[in-house]
Amino acid sequence: MRWSKAYLPTYKESPSDAEIPSHKLMMRAGLIRKLTAGVYSFLPLGWRVLHKIEHIVREEMDRIGCQEIMMPILHPSELYEESGRLKHFGPELFTLKDRRGRFFALGPTHEEVVTDIARAEIKSYRQLPQTLYQILVKFRDEIRPRFGVMRAREFIMKDAYSFHESHESLAETYTNMAEAYRRTLDRCGLENVMVEADAGKIGGDVNHEFVVFAEHGESEILICSCGYVANSERAESLGKPLASKEKVQKKPEQVSTPKMKTVEQVSNFLDVSPAHLVKTMLYKSGDSMVAVLIPGERTLNESKLSKVLDDPYVEPLRDDDIKKLTGAEAGYAGPVGLPGDTRIIVDPTLDEYDGMIVGANATDAHLRGVKMGRDFEATERADVIAAEEGDRCKRCSDQILQLRRGVEMGHIFKLDTKYSKAMSATFLDNEGKERHFIMGCYGFGVSRAVAAAIEADYDDKGIRWPKTITPFHAIVLPVKMSDADTMMAAESIYAELREAGWDVLLDDRDTRAGVKFKDADLIGIPLRITLGERSLKEGKVEIYHRRDDRTELIDREGVLDYVREFYSA
Amino acid sequence: MRWSKAYLPTYKESPSDAEIPSHKLMMRAGLIRKLTAGVYSFLPLGWRVLHKIEHIVREEMDRIGCQEIMMPILHPSELYEESGRLKHFGPELFTLKDRRGRFFALGPTHEEVVTDIARAEIKSYRQLPQTLYQILVKFRDEIRPRFGVMRAREFIMKDAYSFHESHESLAETYTNMAEAYRRTLDRCGLENVMVEADAGKIGGDVNHEFVVFAEHGESEILICSCGYVANSERAESLGKPLASKEKVQKKPEQVSTPKMKTVEQVSNFLDVSPAHLVKTMLYKSGDSMVAVLIPGERTLNESKLSKVLDDPYVEPLRDDDIKKLTGAEAGYAGPVGLPGDTRIIVDPTLDEYDGMIVGANATDAHLRGVKMGRDFEATERADVIAAEEGDRCKRCSDQILQLRRGVEMGHIFKLDTKYSKAMSATFLDNEGKERHFIMGCYGFGVSRAVAAAIEADYDDKGIRWPKTITPFHAIVLPVKMSDADTMMAAESIYAELREAGWDVLLDDRDTRAGVKFKDADLIGIPLRITLGERSLKEGKVEIYHRRDDRTELIDREGVLDYVREFYSA
Repeated sequence: MRWSKAYLPTYKESPSDAEIPSHKLMMRAGLIRKLTAGVYSFLPLGWRVLHKIEHIVREEMDRIGCQEIMMPILHPSELYEESGRLKHFGPELFTLKDRRGRFFALGPTHEEVVTDIARAEIKSYRQLPQTLYQILVKFRDEIRPRFGVMRAREFIMKDAYSFHESHESLAETYTNMAEAYRRTLDRCGLENVMVEADAGKIGGDVNHEFVVFAEHGESEILICSCGYVANSERAESLGKPLASKEKVQKKPEQVSTPKMKTVEQVSNFLDVSPAHLVKTMLYKSGDSMVAVLIPGERTLNESKLSKVLDDPYVEPLRDDDIKKLTGAEAGYAGPVGLPGDTRIIVDPTLDEYDGMIVGANATDAHLRGVKMGRDFEATERADVIAAEEGDRCKRCSDQILQLRRGVEMGHIFKLDTKYSKAMSATFLDNEGKERHFIMGCYGFGVSRAVAAAIEADYDDKGIRWPKTITPFHAIVLPVKMSDADTMMAAESIYAELREAGWDVLLDDRDTRAGVKFKDADLIGIPLRITLGERSLKEGKVEIYHRRDDRTELIDREGVLDYVREFYSA
Repeated sequence: MRWSKAYLPTYKESPSDAEIPSHKLMMRAGLIRKLTAGVYSFLPLGWRVLHKIEHIVREEMDRIGCQEIMMPILHPSELYEESGRLKHFGPELFTLKDRRGRFFALGPTHEEVVTDIARAEIKSYRQLPQTLYQILVKFRDEIRPRFGVMRAREFIMKDAYSFHESHESLAETYTNMAEAYRRTLDRCGLENVMVEADAGKIGGDVNHEFVVFAEHGESEILICSCGYVANSERAESLGKPLASKEKVQKKPEQVSTPKMKTVEQVSNFLDVSPAHLVKTMLYKSGDSMVAVLIPGERTLNESKLSKVLDDPYVEPLRDDDIKKLTGAEAGYAGPVGLPGDTRIIVDPTLDEYDGMIVGANATDAHLRGVKMGRDFEATERADVIAAEEGDRCKRCSDQILQLRRGVEMGHIFKLDTKYSKAMSATFLDNEGKERHFIMGCYGFGVSRAVAAAIEADYDDKGIRWPKTITPFHAIVLPVKMSDADTMMAAESIYAELREAGWDVLLDDRDTRAGVKFKDADLIGIPLRITLGERSLKEGKVEIYHRRDDRTELIDREGVLDYVREFYSA
């Protein structure tokens, strides 16, 4: 492609709403353009990267026997009523009414639609297993779209769905899929890790994320040298060792803590370490009241709580309900003396406590020296705290968890019968018995991968594309446009490389060389072939390696071989 | 692919809502599945055809220098207010509100979005011309979705948009695009014709459709042996010769026609040919009243009228307004004695009339022997009748128009400055003067092409795919699954063809041979390689050509060469 005729706008400045490097660079290098919040166009340069990623994804899916299909974007909302996800997604689902007044959702994923297809046609175990996939635009009305295509409201995803008669068969496909994901990311040149993760709005018991390491990624990964790796939303830990301990008193001592509601206020006021305090957080699950106890300085992981209670709609009590339950204002709740039918869930890190300071269930008061098992009974022990960097690893109980940031590129799920049961999707097994499909689903963020590749490798001059997904293999840069020999060489190298099948960009713009060098660095093509007047006279051209920031002078005749060798390495 | 493991469901019966052969066959052969009215999934077999068509479209677009991009599906409705198409599309536009209450349309085409991109970035004539295209799902809430993917509410379209500084530059791209469309359809194996067409909701002055001939197509094409070809919505004609003529009388004679409102009723009652009658149809355009005069037995083409009046919102007068204007009930309107500011538009076919019978502008009365120019004055002459088969061609005024049916596959438009003016999209020309982009737009129905290919060639047994877009190049059919030699030969031919890069389907289903033969005919793979026990013993296999319905016995060793030769021919 000739730059003079191409639609490749570049900018010196990035827009003010671009917070992270990939977003800034995608705007500056003309890969994307914002239409409205969280909604972007891919311009020619961005589209080329997208297309190469799609191609790799497709090859890896086909290789493990998945079959490509294309499902609609308009989903009748009845399907979401069947699956129960209408409520679960809530306002994140884009919905509309057609001219006849029927409701539709714009597909956020396609579990419902694919289950609807399968239940109509897969009748027998003989037709199983099946894995169908598509590469399609998806929609989620994110409350806070940001980071460009990284967290967009309209984005491209590869989603696959598998149907099985047995858990063994699902496990086999799940493993194949995990390997395909790893190969896909490896081929895209992206360092990645598979981590245990949270199932979010998809559901199912077992699931893993594929995360590409990147300093500005939104995902937090906790890693132990013992091999344990998990998303921070899902990670389990033993917490940190206690700095000091509250002594158990003969009986709980009520202390006055006027207007002190936070852990910080109370511990300062009583002049103890926050480790002496235990937070009591009150929730409602269906008609039950739930009190959750965690160490004073820790954060509750609501998603873990949701799973413990097996209730996706669990919600914190409002202040007036807290008053009704505890008799005190919010901020003074504690486990001692709660109504007998209150479920008390205790995080295992509290096992190490001797005494505890807890709310007194009386406004402006706390209890000191409380002992679990004597002053109150836990209904159950369950891991509900958010794991943090520096926590002790639960797997090895020996090493300390380290934090790394990354971008979630893929997420695979064993759904089991979650959707097939909700939607009555059945087949006949080899004994003629009707059974629900065992299912898996597997998502991969195709448009997000473009941004992830940039986050994973860039410098202050611009992007540095991996070889496999670069929009062009080489950029030919004639330094002096007015020099006839330079231009002749540029045209002949351009033609030679193109004929050999390479994607080449010829920067034939009639502008200053400085601008061209800057732009070439910005758009990050791995090889820049610079044609200078002087070196050409000696039959030489300059090859600049964007990633290594190094230059080599080679014979003009050797260009094609050089490019071929570089990309076959 | 092995049929036993593939998702390729076939059916003997087609659903009751399938009216045309392509819809029936696409359902029966498992190419598509309906999710809801006008909304379909492409299953693996359909997707393969779709993907091959996309590939051809992409190659032909790239070949003429178009650049691929990908624009969003969610369009802020403000853009449609700017362009004026919000009203023009009306309920055909799917619209929705996001969680913040902002309105969006689901893109029916992308003129607004691409013009918004261009106005932000193309500043100078030096950056022109540019042609951008995408292959993307589009949405139109058709009032009557039907014929499967042929008239769907969600469909895949290739849409291209070009920006120019001059009409010459637009004309050049328009010609290139027309050639690319012809090549695309030719490569897809579809006999096609470029016809003058109606601009519909897109607009602009010059536009052409690409129509693939098909007996059940929705498009009507009028063709003259002089070379004139036009869509019936757009075609001009001289009408048919008059069977007999109404005599002019000294002055119009009022005759009583009680309760006779239709041409048929009046001509029967007066015992004259309908050719004596002239229909007066009353419309409103803005604040003006318009009377349109056409021969009694012809139909008005409202789209032509709309263009004559330069008003996309022209609408027929309601009965009470007719009474206000003419003083008579609807059915008795005529051109004589209308209020002076009524615009009277007369179709040129009325030039041949001597006298006319028209409504008397009095209930239950008509006028005989009326003479145009004496009894009333035409404000203007304009072609407004719908052309029909058997009309005299206007181009050569010699031959008769013939009708052929077809499927509209592409539509290209010279938009001129329609969108750039409405949306203030400008650039600086070489004199530094600000000017509006001259634009073109070019649509191609990618998902519709799958159906069109079937409409263009099928028989009572099923589909007959063109070589270039067939989902598989060959199907290998072992007749007797229990015969070890047969199965060994099947596996080895399957492997041999696959390794050589051919798309092969092996029908390894454990089912009766009759079912397999029927299914092979139904899904329409061009070559069926049948492995029979007896011929295999003689080292032979049978090649069945689906399109020609002929069989050849060839040496087992020659299969690969045979396939290669067939597809290179």
